[in-house]
Amino acid sequence: MARIPTAPIKGARDFLPRDLAPRNRVFQLMRETFERYGYEPLETPAIEHSSVLEGKYGEEGERLLFRVLKNGRDLESAAGELLGRGAEADRSAGALARALSESALRYDLTVPLARVIAARQNEIVMPFRRYQMQPVWRGDRPQRGRYREFFQCDVDCVGSRAMTVDAEMVAIHYEVYSRLGFQTFVTQVSHRGLLDALMESCGVAPELRTPARTQIDKFDKIGADGVRAELLRVGLSERVTDALLDTLSVSGAPLDILETLAPRLRGTEQGETSMRELREVFGFIRELGVPQERYELRLSMVRGSDYYTGTIYETVLPGSGLGTLGAGGRYDKLVGMFLGRDIPAVGISFGIERMLVAMADAGLLLGDVITTTQALVTLFDAATTPASIALAQALRAAGVRTEVYPEPKGLGPQLAFGSNKGIPLAFIIGPDEAARGEVKLRDLRTRQEVSVPQAAAPAEALTRLE
Amino acid sequence: MARIPTAPIKGARDFLPRDLAPRNRVFQLMRETFERYGYEPLETPAIEHSSVLEGKYGEEGERLLFRVLKNGRDLESAAGELLGRGAEADRSAGALARALSESALRYDLTVPLARVIAARQNEIVMPFRRYQMQPVWRGDRPQRGRYREFFQCDVDCVGSRAMTVDAEMVAIHYEVYSRLGFQTFVTQVSHRGLLDALMESCGVAPELRTPARTQIDKFDKIGADGVRAELLRVGLSERVTDALLDTLSVSGAPLDILETLAPRLRGTEQGETSMRELREVFGFIRELGVPQERYELRLSMVRGSDYYTGTIYETVLPGSGLGTLGAGGRYDKLVGMFLGRDIPAVGISFGIERMLVAMADAGLLLGDVITTTQALVTLFDAATTPASIALAQALRAAGVRTEVYPEPKGLGPQLAFGSNKGIPLAFIIGPDEAARGEVKLRDLRTRQEVSVPQAAAPAEALTRLE
Repeated sequence: MARIPTAPIKGARDFLPRDLAPRNRVFQLMRETFERYGYEPLETPAIEHSSVLEGKYGEEGERLLFRVLKNGRDLESAAGELLGRGAEADRSAGALARALSESALRYDLTVPLARVIAARQNEIVMPFRRYQMQPVWRGDRPQRGRYREFFQCDVDCVGSRAMTVDAEMVAIHYEVYSRLGFQTFVTQVSHRGLLDALMESCGVAPELRTPARTQIDKFDKIGADGVRAELLRVGLSERVTDALLDTLSVSGAPLDILETLAPRLRGTEQGETSMRELREVFGFIRELGVPQERYELRLSMVRGSDYYTGTIYETVLPGSGLGTLGAGGRYDKLVGMFLGRDIPAVGISFGIERMLVAMADAGLLLGDVITTTQALVTLFDAATTPASIALAQALRAAGVRTEVYPEPKGLGPQLAFGSNKGIPLAFIIGPDEAARGEVKLRDLRTRQEVSVPQAAAPAEALTRLE
Repeated sequence: MARIPTAPIKGARDFLPRDLAPRNRVFQLMRETFERYGYEPLETPAIEHSSVLEGKYGEEGERLLFRVLKNGRDLESAAGELLGRGAEADRSAGALARALSESALRYDLTVPLARVIAARQNEIVMPFRRYQMQPVWRGDRPQRGRYREFFQCDVDCVGSRAMTVDAEMVAIHYEVYSRLGFQTFVTQVSHRGLLDALMESCGVAPELRTPARTQIDKFDKIGADGVRAELLRVGLSERVTDALLDTLSVSGAPLDILETLAPRLRGTEQGETSMRELREVFGFIRELGVPQERYELRLSMVRGSDYYTGTIYETVLPGSGLGTLGAGGRYDKLVGMFLGRDIPAVGISFGIERMLVAMADAGLLLGDVITTTQALVTLFDAATTPASIALAQALRAAGVRTEVYPEPKGLGPQLAFGSNKGIPLAFIIGPDEAARGEVKLRDLRTRQEVSVPQAAAPAEALTRLE
């Protein structure tokens, strides 16, 4: 047989049980938290019609789509047409993809949400709070914490403009990260209109606002002096630059900052709206009980995506060098794209892959078990096998996750198997134990052994597993 | 904007929350059962190298692969080469697929398991009990209960030849189906070598055994008389046919059947092996406590796939017209395919899509909730909103899955929203309740209302949700 690769494709991963233990714990915790806030699960197919995905992710994003090749006669006729055109055929990757494929793998979870909202508009009751945790595919260059097949975990509320929902985004972030054990995270909050209104009030010319925004986005990387130099470089005057940096440097509790900036924000629609909405959001965040050190108003925040229209969020772990762990915002124009009318929405996305890296770095995965299995029942010989199998069933009935070693074999290898797998408890019924109706319980973590009556084994196991 | 389809692609489905409630319950129950038997989760990527999948599923299966189109320069050069060949180009779908693609979507979970076993042989401790529940893709013609994107749920034990493990397959089937509420299912058990040995002992010529097997497989559909006619038609003599049907009609408890057939099975390797292994398996099944009416030895069973080498299993719901709900067997030659040496394995696959159809038919889904959310907190006005939000947080802290209506609005629409979604409880804090520190609890199922102190609301909710 020719040598066949056994590694997964580039940028994708196999998850062995020990890899899945922490992943599944994080997924489960997120699922519980989302549901506790009234968000419900939604799942959509991996493959979407190309027309659903095209025109949504920009030219660069579209190049990264994993497209599904047409098959059978459809493929033959598409290729036949291409070959028929011969030298005339458009040989660009984009044109070829459009000719040879009509569907592609999911690139994110927002476009499928928008599609489902349109397809099932008569069934879905608004406001619709949903979460979705499924893989997406992007033909990006793989690097640490970045994959071609990776999970996205999105939480969105569709159909309401009320700021109570925006505040929930911060509360959900807070619950997820604090329950995972993170201690120093901060959710930065701002509003799409805020920075623009501040730039306007400081006299930044309209045509300079986009380049200025790009530079302000670098605050964390290059500091205030760096940003100052860059703003001057892109054409802001010294006076305007200093006024802007002075404004952005206002610090304090969110509502105090808004109070200080109020005179600057009054009079423009962007300023008024962002001020009103941020005041409401911070009020609701407080009522939701999020501790004040876990969130802040970040005047210099610029979320990259064009589609945000209101409040915006980024959760960071200061000093981790990891960038954003989760982010989102309000996007009132996007979900209605397939319906041809606006439907307000706000949502956040948890960067599960980066979160797991951060958890490993912070030592938050150390307690994770490496196997789901809790007990190993060994087999001594054919005569004692029935008693051992019955014991295994009794353990299972008590809720103990129990594996039976498949066949009688030296005890040493069987116990080594259990230790290697990280199973905490082993049970042994040899002829002596069988004669006395007992079982030997060996704690593979401490190597301590104790004999107990077979009927008492499940209770004993549960005590030791607590 | 051009009209874009909003339905999912053919053969795929969107799962709204109410669709996911029963699905996730079934998945969760399977996951728990598998883990209780010491099986651990494994996940592999959706996309595999084509060379991993090719040559594994037969010509027909290979035609059904969803192939991923090469992209960027790889696509341009593949197409360039094709166009360069012009009229000489092989325009068959197979050749085009090989030229234009080098990866494809997962078609089953067995080949990825075999690949992982090879890739991670130094890490994986054998025997390796794993389960995997992930979608697979097949470009089949969609029909009721058959989709192009659907989940497979596989449970396999790799690395042991012991019949204790084979018996577990029947026990796991039993636990899953009985815990789901099925009452009449039967797991049919046989052995790959048994039917062949019986045919040999009845004098069926070697070249007639394959056609005969195909006819015997129709027992359920066409009955003994039908099979008799077909066996004669394919060339068995009357004497041989009658001897064979007589043998296959032996009935009774599995060990009794084996006892009766023992003289016929002795003397050939197939006969001896199948008899010995089946005796062991049925012994262990009994020790695992599976009730005897839930399994049987089915002499006429023929599992289609060529790769089975030992015990085989099919679970059916007699009278449901649904065919097999789950099936599997021992396959000692397949998992080692990437290693170039045999690794014994036994496994079963649960037909989740068909199981859900069967559950709906049997009325086993009626009790399923249609939303995960348990409580709706209404908002009366701006003044009472803080108290309502605080109440929601108290409910959540107590573990009640709670949604807050996003904004003050007439109570009627808010309660209608809760009822429409199937949320059982609603909470109302109006000015009167706020003044008294109380909250009105409305049971949306019974329309009963009661006022309770706000601090008592979580406990009251938990009581009513029990």
